[in-house]
Amino acid sequence: MQNRVTEILGSEYPIIQGAMRRISLGELAAAVSRAGGFGIIGASGMEGNALRAEIRKARFLTDRPFGLNIPIYRPNALEALEIAVEEGIQTITTSAGDPGKIIGRVKEARMKVLHVVATVDMARKAEAAGVDAVIAMGAEGGGHVGRDEISTMVLLPQVVDAVRIPVVAAVGIGDGRGLVAAFALGAEGVQMGTRFLATRESPVPDGYKQALLAARDDATMIAARKGYPIRVLKNQAALAVRAMDERGASQLEINAFVDSLSDKGKGAEGEGLMSAGQVAGLIREIKTVEEVIRGMVTEAKSVVQKLGEKF
Amino acid sequence: MQNRVTEILGSEYPIIQGAMRRISLGELAAAVSRAGGFGIIGASGMEGNALRAEIRKARFLTDRPFGLNIPIYRPNALEALEIAVEEGIQTITTSAGDPGKIIGRVKEARMKVLHVVATVDMARKAEAAGVDAVIAMGAEGGGHVGRDEISTMVLLPQVVDAVRIPVVAAVGIGDGRGLVAAFALGAEGVQMGTRFLATRESPVPDGYKQALLAARDDATMIAARKGYPIRVLKNQAALAVRAMDERGASQLEINAFVDSLSDKGKGAEGEGLMSAGQVAGLIREIKTVEEVIRGMVTEAKSVVQKLGEKF
Repeated sequence: MQNRVTEILGSEYPIIQGAMRRISLGELAAAVSRAGGFGIIGASGMEGNALRAEIRKARFLTDRPFGLNIPIYRPNALEALEIAVEEGIQTITTSAGDPGKIIGRVKEARMKVLHVVATVDMARKAEAAGVDAVIAMGAEGGGHVGRDEISTMVLLPQVVDAVRIPVVAAVGIGDGRGLVAAFALGAEGVQMGTRFLATRESPVPDGYKQALLAARDDATMIAARKGYPIRVLKNQAALAVRAMDERGASQLEINAFVDSLSDKGKGAEGEGLMSAGQVAGLIREIKTVEEVIRGMVTEAKSVVQKLGEKF
Repeated sequence: MQNRVTEILGSEYPIIQGAMRRISLGELAAAVSRAGGFGIIGASGMEGNALRAEIRKARFLTDRPFGLNIPIYRPNALEALEIAVEEGIQTITTSAGDPGKIIGRVKEARMKVLHVVATVDMARKAEAAGVDAVIAMGAEGGGHVGRDEISTMVLLPQVVDAVRIPVVAAVGIGDGRGLVAAFALGAEGVQMGTRFLATRESPVPDGYKQALLAARDDATMIAARKGYPIRVLKNQAALAVRAMDERGASQLEINAFVDSLSDKGKGAEGEGLMSAGQVAGLIREIKTVEEVIRGMVTEAKSVVQKLGEKF
């Protein structure tokens, strides 16, 4: 499965682990890279020294390459980028902001960058800014989603038609069938978040993992459509956030409410605000990261073989 | 491409034309069936004699089988079913309601029925009721969409895992890539509405077709999320409906507003409420129905061949 995306990543498979705030740290990223994928440490909300420590932890756990995700609008974006350079990170992903702001430093440091986009327009702009690839993120994904709510099935081929750089499909992929579907639509790689949340190596509380296993197709919702849209598991906390958002509560007020839930340890009981993509409904087992990756590659080969008989 | 779905339909390809209220009439349905697909006359909002006339028109235009779509909750559902039986229709699709209400008569008449579902739960219930196949409809589709807004990419494999009867993928499919992606996810057929809207044979005004060509990935919106969710092209009319819906307007009030736009001929100018799926962004040319169908089958074969080299 070597292609333009594995060349950018330096990985065995073009399978990226999506950044998850305060979840995708050194241990999970290393596990994904060890299994042949490309692990990502999320820099969002990480203080400089803590971020450095996670990078070093991952490096201790694997000699394979892994990356950093940097949300560009965050105040610590440039600091995180310098840390990435100093720590010898070769490839980063960026999101939520204009990649033009970081591309100069990225090129100077001879790094590669994949930028997350949610529309065709964002993809065109990212290509023009000089990124090496785009990650097309559909509306069915967990965590922050694009305001236009364009699904992977339709976003992906349109982005592929609009740019010449490689396109990675993010969101909605949980097994070998999804991997093949993404490639049929023109992707040269996939990024998965929710599927890696529900692994042995994922650091989230057991209540969160159990909630993912219990989740069905209709188990998620977008909690703050007017404010900063975020897809989470549908529970009391999520419904409370939606109600706050609908009555026009500020982002600060919503954040304070969400933090108060975390303080009460509601996450551990599966009662906090838990990001998850609609693909959660497809997850029936807590596997190891290696089982997830090898399993989907094996399944994909058999799916392609069957397609050959059908067409 | 003969499989369990073509067996149910009696068509050359497992490609169904989705029902579009007052649009998918005899002429469009016949064109699709002539080209090897399976045309559908939408019975929604059709008076008995008018429906009969459309069926006879289609029969005059093709000797290949075509079907009828019957929204079960509509007052004319049972009448439409009797007309289908009398006119010798072999296969119908049903939607928006409990298929248990019509299954007895369908079986008695030795007809086949495919039921449209938007969740795994609806698919399980439809299978238990005895339908021959389900059509899994994702949230990116045009016209009425499911309240849970589950996308094709994630809905499809979950429905496939949940039932033993064949699953047809509706929504989000506009070309050969989408056809292969749907089959990779486990579908045995596809249904397309928006792609057939933008054909020579489609009876919608030219303003509507031009609006579909101009549409980009972010050109659609769900206009009445609180009421009866419907995906349409984003324009002044759609924004007005959203505003009415958000301030709690009744469905009657919204319908009256939409009808007043039609009366003013706004549809012809591309200014009325125009149903369209997100896949509209993929449509760049008004083709004939035959060009659409043959083109996507040819493209699909080449996509599958390339997948074989990649995996």
